Amino acid sequence: MAGNTFGQAFKISTFGESHGVAIGVIIDGCPAGLNIDLNQVQSDLDRRKPGQSKITTQRKESDTAQILSGTFEGKSTGTPITFLIPNEDQRSKDYDHNVGAFRPSHADYTYQAKYGIRDHRGGGRSSARETAARVAAGAVAKMFLKQVAGIEINAYVSRVGKMKLDKTYQELDLASAENNILRCADPEMAEQMIQYIDQVRKAGDTVGGVITCVAKKVPVGLGEPVFDKLHADLGKAMLSINAVHGFEYGSGFDGASMLGSEHNDLFETDFSTKTNYSGGIQGGISNGQDIFFNVAFKPVATIMQGQATVDKDGNAVELHGKGRHDPCVVPRAVPIVEAMTALVLADHWLRNKNSKI
Amino acid sequence: MAGNTFGQAFKISTFGESHGVAIGVIIDGCPAGLNIDLNQVQSDLDRRKPGQSKITTQRKESDTAQILSGTFEGKSTGTPITFLIPNEDQRSKDYDHNVGAFRPSHADYTYQAKYGIRDHRGGGRSSARETAARVAAGAVAKMFLKQVAGIEINAYVSRVGKMKLDKTYQELDLASAENNILRCADPEMAEQMIQYIDQVRKAGDTVGGVITCVAKKVPVGLGEPVFDKLHADLGKAMLSINAVHGFEYGSGFDGASMLGSEHNDLFETDFSTKTNYSGGIQGGISNGQDIFFNVAFKPVATIMQGQATVDKDGNAVELHGKGRHDPCVVPRAVPIVEAMTALVLADHWLRNKNSKI
Amino acid sequence: MAGNTFGQAFKISTFGESHGVAIGVIIDGCPAGLNIDLNQVQSDLDRRKPGQSKITTQRKESDTAQILSGTFEGKSTGTPITFLIPNEDQRSKDYDHNVGAFRPSHADYTYQAKYGIRDHRGGGRSSARETAARVAAGAVAKMFLKQVAGIEINAYVSRVGKMKLDKTYQELDLASAENNILRCADPEMAEQMIQYIDQVRKAGDTVGGVITCVAKKVPVGLGEPVFDKLHADLGKAMLSINAVHGFEYGSGFDGASMLGSEHNDLFETDFSTKTNYSGGIQGGISNGQDIFFNVAFKPVATIMQGQATVDKDGNAVELHGKGRHDPCVVPRAVPIVEAMTALVLADHWLRNKNSKI
Amino acid sequence: MAGNTFGQAFKISTFGESHGVAIGVIIDGCPAGLNIDLNQVQSDLDRRKPGQSKITTQRKESDTAQILSGTFEGKSTGTPITFLIPNEDQRSKDYDHNVGAFRPSHADYTYQAKYGIRDHRGGGRSSARETAARVAAGAVAKMFLKQVAGIEINAYVSRVGKMKLDKTYQELDLASAENNILRCADPEMAEQMIQYIDQVRKAGDTVGGVITCVAKKVPVGLGEPVFDKLHADLGKAMLSINAVHGFEYGSGFDGASMLGSEHNDLFETDFSTKTNYSGGIQGGISNGQDIFFNVAFKPVATIMQGQATVDKDGNAVELHGKGRHDPCVVPRAVPIVEAMTALVLADHWLRNKNSKI
Repeated sequence: MAGNTFGQAFKISTFGESHGVAIGVIIDGCPAGLNIDLNQVQSDLDRRKPGQSKITTQRKESDTAQILSGTFEGKSTGTPITFLIPNEDQRSKDYDHNVGAFRPSHADYTYQAKYGIRDHRGGGRSSARETAARVAAGAVAKMFLKQVAGIEINAYVSRVGKMKLDKTYQELDLASAENNILRCADPEMAEQMIQYIDQVRKAGDTVGGVITCVAKKVPVGLGEPVFDKLHADLGKAMLSINAVHGFEYGSGFDGASMLGSEHNDLFETDFSTKTNYSGGIQGGISNGQDIFFNVAFKPVATIMQGQATVDKDGNAVELHGKGRHDPCVVPRAVPIVEAMTALVLADHWLRNKNSKI
Repeated sequence: MAGNTFGQAFKISTFGESHGVAIGVIIDGCPAGLNIDLNQVQSDLDRRKPGQSKITTQRKESDTAQILSGTFEGKSTGTPITFLIPNEDQRSKDYDHNVGAFRPSHADYTYQAKYGIRDHRGGGRSSARETAARVAAGAVAKMFLKQVAGIEINAYVSRVGKMKLDKTYQELDLASAENNILRCADPEMAEQMIQYIDQVRKAGDTVGGVITCVAKKVPVGLGEPVFDKLHADLGKAMLSINAVHGFEYGSGFDGASMLGSEHNDLFETDFSTKTNYSGGIQGGISNGQDIFFNVAFKPVATIMQGQATVDKDGNAVELHGKGRHDPCVVPRAVPIVEAMTALVLADHWLRNKNSKI
Repeated sequence: MAGNTFGQAFKISTFGESHGVAIGVIIDGCPAGLNIDLNQVQSDLDRRKPGQSKITTQRKESDTAQILSGTFEGKSTGTPITFLIPNEDQRSKDYDHNVGAFRPSHADYTYQAKYGIRDHRGGGRSSARETAARVAAGAVAKMFLKQVAGIEINAYVSRVGKMKLDKTYQELDLASAENNILRCADPEMAEQMIQYIDQVRKAGDTVGGVITCVAKKVPVGLGEPVFDKLHADLGKAMLSINAVHGFEYGSGFDGASMLGSEHNDLFETDFSTKTNYSGGIQGGISNGQDIFFNVAFKPVATIMQGQATVDKDGNAVELHGKGRHDPCVVPRAVPIVEAMTALVLADHWLRNKNSKI
Repeated sequence: MAGNTFGQAFKISTFGESHGVAIGVIIDGCPAGLNIDLNQVQSDLDRRKPGQSKITTQRKESDTAQILSGTFEGKSTGTPITFLIPNEDQRSKDYDHNVGAFRPSHADYTYQAKYGIRDHRGGGRSSARETAARVAAGAVAKMFLKQVAGIEINAYVSRVGKMKLDKTYQELDLASAENNILRCADPEMAEQMIQYIDQVRKAGDTVGGVITCVAKKVPVGLGEPVFDKLHADLGKAMLSINAVHGFEYGSGFDGASMLGSEHNDLFETDFSTKTNYSGGIQGGISNGQDIFFNVAFKPVATIMQGQATVDKDGNAVELHGKGRHDPCVVPRAVPIVEAMTALVLADHWLRNKNSKI
């Protein structure tokens, strides 16, 4: 009910605040017998961690995951797998000047109103720091999908501000996204985008962007009819990531402009389709084609410029951006998008096992 | 697990197939003491029902909802409220020629693969007919929101194919959408769009569109942090509607192009905001401003043109569109979008009651 | 949240009140491909229905189940299976004299207090009539268990008032329980118990009893550790049946008197156990031995004698038993106990499929 | 699905194994604004911890709970509250001789069969050590119930082996149970029972017992009709505790012997009842009277005697009890029973808030 749990069969529950002792996650429902590679968990956390490049926040967190339960001799045992990630560099003092001030387009006001109490040291539970826990869990989901079905998930930055990659994912080497600090799958565009973000950063401003994600080798049959359609669960997963304002899959918003005679994906005799406007999902169920979708991120709300705001009594106050924040969230959000994708697919992979007797 | 249930506190479960005896819905969790107006339920069903105008399918269904349980002397009793909507005009024969043929961009292939069995008489469970059950339940959710909090929900068609309404919702009289058969809140654009759909229909083709939805007077505090953010649940709700390929709220995909200094919604001293790029939701929680979002629908897959496809053994067959289908889904989808919005808000309204002691 | 749903993977939701239009049930999660025998559903309903013998209520209900969805050509399709059971012989007038009076040890007072509104025509939602819906769903669960794993479930009356069957289930022919109107697996005891119930009935009184249930051929592995232990879910299932006040499995309450050296079930080399004080469940997980348990029912609260009570304003009033009620609930409760057992086992059978990769 | 979560509105998820790094619990759904007294959490843990007296296991664990999240300045914030309890004195070597041997009436065999992998160092996830996490969470639930409704919960030992307390809870000073190491609310019986357990211990054996629990000042209205009746959830909660084989509330199994005319609880004009065979619950909903129930525990399976058993290949092996174990589980189970009771009541207290508009 309180919204800290995601998934039904492969279920995660996260906990922890940005300026508390630690954050963490319980994975409940991972089948026994999975090989758990902790290096891979750490590797994904490193892709998300702050301070990794000049275009990310300089907050220093090693984000070292400790495993507390659920494995024995390197394998999952069918019991809850728990990761703990201690908070190290909270610098709560950066927030002292903000006591009582509601930062614009943050969750300060809504949390205060909803709960009547608020940890003013950063975003608390609303901080994107919580997503580190998702990345740790998502790494296990990725291993699961790889080991049971060979599924591969790759996300990359496809837009920063108005700069948009004009190639489709098929024209790109997706793995190359890891070769640049932006995680854009086109090296040239990456360079231009990085320069642009750096300018934005120097101006004390922030900018939005889009991430594209592709899942390959997904077997036919994942997704449940009606409410838990595969793309509905992917959409919810993406929209639950901080700063996300939009989700589209397959033809997406452009599909609204098309005619049925253009949009229909005709079958080949092996049940593959000639086109893939459906984005690999028909009737909410995977059809064996590539699954792909876009996720839109708004600009980070914390800017290094003065802003007029109000305190909790409604008095006008001036807010001065301090602390260490990301000029653009997308480079660090790539592993988060992948993690949430993996969690949705793992969940539906398990759920699908009971479709037929 | 099987995906036929939506919501946690105000929860619905739908049942039934397009060519079976009936479809229906159980609402579980509606508090006792609500005045239930069955005319309002029927009125929303009439807005969704087939055959209502020249730009909808000519299938004839009265879609008369019978109430089976959950009320006493006109009020909800706190027990499950059940609606039954008998199927009347199935004309299963329209589908006889399709036995074994997989209709492109329908759920025929994925259902067959997932379940190993398929009711070939229309879409079965994957048919949009299921959404009538949602509309009946949504009508109760609307009454609930109106009676407990005065919340108002209005959806309207804002795009058909490439024809896009260029006014924001603030510039429109939302109630006027009901004055035309398209449910577009701009009478002039409505006329042009209707003519366009009629052309598409005559060509045996179909076209996509976009619906915009606005919820006003939503109190501060609805939505749960982390996974069940209000917009994440709205997004899932919309993406679970047949043919939806995209969802964006507030600034949406355009927000990805903006700078933080432009996008931040500065507070007034009454905690309202000067702008509303946040779409009425901050940190996943309603902030008291209008909630608004767009929902993209792909073109209906059934077209009245010959299409090459395959049967379940992979043999190439020719498919001839028959039956009675919608050239564009958006006019009938307006009440569905409203219904799902109401269900999400009712659910979160109840969930929010336990935020504070 | 509102408690009308049971199960996670094989999930049922019931609806309807004793004096409304109909009661019914949705089964969500039954895998596709199951052969559904509607005669078997009706046969179990007939075992539960009123008016079947002199020791049950004379209320007349045919309890004919209509199937509304979820099957195609005699097989389940993986979509929700819905049964509707119309109410026929409500005789609401029998309750007219009770308007405002709270019947002792019924749910009248607690429902009025909880909901602020109450259907005074009989128990409404609290009536045991709701269990007919469970029996219909349980019949499908039984078919499922039989078809996938050969599991057999048999319940029988083992006690009425102070008259207690002193044989264990191993000493009895469980199938013989259906040969007498009490459903006691010992013909001689059955005769004596029936006579006793008849006396109680003539005195306008009621009496309690115990039902024993045995599940054979349950495979090893059903049940989840910690909270959803198999016996914990069985216990909840039984305690959710009207009038149940106790549940014990295996050695039960007598086990509290035993020493560990007596109680431990030593293994044979085929992993069966020499004794079965564990009742077929160890660590919450089935171990392949017979599962057996006892369910205690209090006497029916409606008696045909005058009782002093109060109305909703707290005024003392005299209540005269009218209507048609059961002198002892156990004969009709036998199929209910079996149904709930089948639902728990079907649920855990599905859940267990994801224990290992 | 995997059974490590309990509750819906006030929900806990536990993790950890007996011989891993730590165990712990997340509480999700505790409303904001609750005063959290960590001393009270520790105090309840101390009542459960091993080594507390001569009649408990001598395993040494300080069972010190660390709080990781969910509070700010001593109050709950509405975010997940997490407790971590490190394992200190695992002495895994005590189990080395058991590698491959299935201990009788433990979960060794069923876990091995279900998961195909098993941590042989003690019970792993099946160990009663997991209940420490429940006690920590239950302490918060107790605080909640006390602060919002003044509810008081007291459990005590009412039976050890065949020695049975013959007084009802009304005749006892429940608080006095904490004055003796057995937690029996009758000092004289306590002394005799302690001596008996000591004898049993010296003989290398174990013995079962019964705990009675009483909840006072529970408001009218807790519990949901049909499946989530208050006593059904209490029953499940108790049956989920290690070694529990039976649950009865109010008149319990004795109620099966009674006549309706004896058993019915007649109302006073203030809606209290003259008798309380209903155990404070009618129609599954609390009626304002005391709630009371009994919980039967089988003897601990680990005995300090040689036992014949089999290894995982089915070879006969001799097992020698080693390690440090409880001769009787009930003294340490008293706080566990209270904790689970508190969790059920807190959950239903929150759920009940949405019964009426």
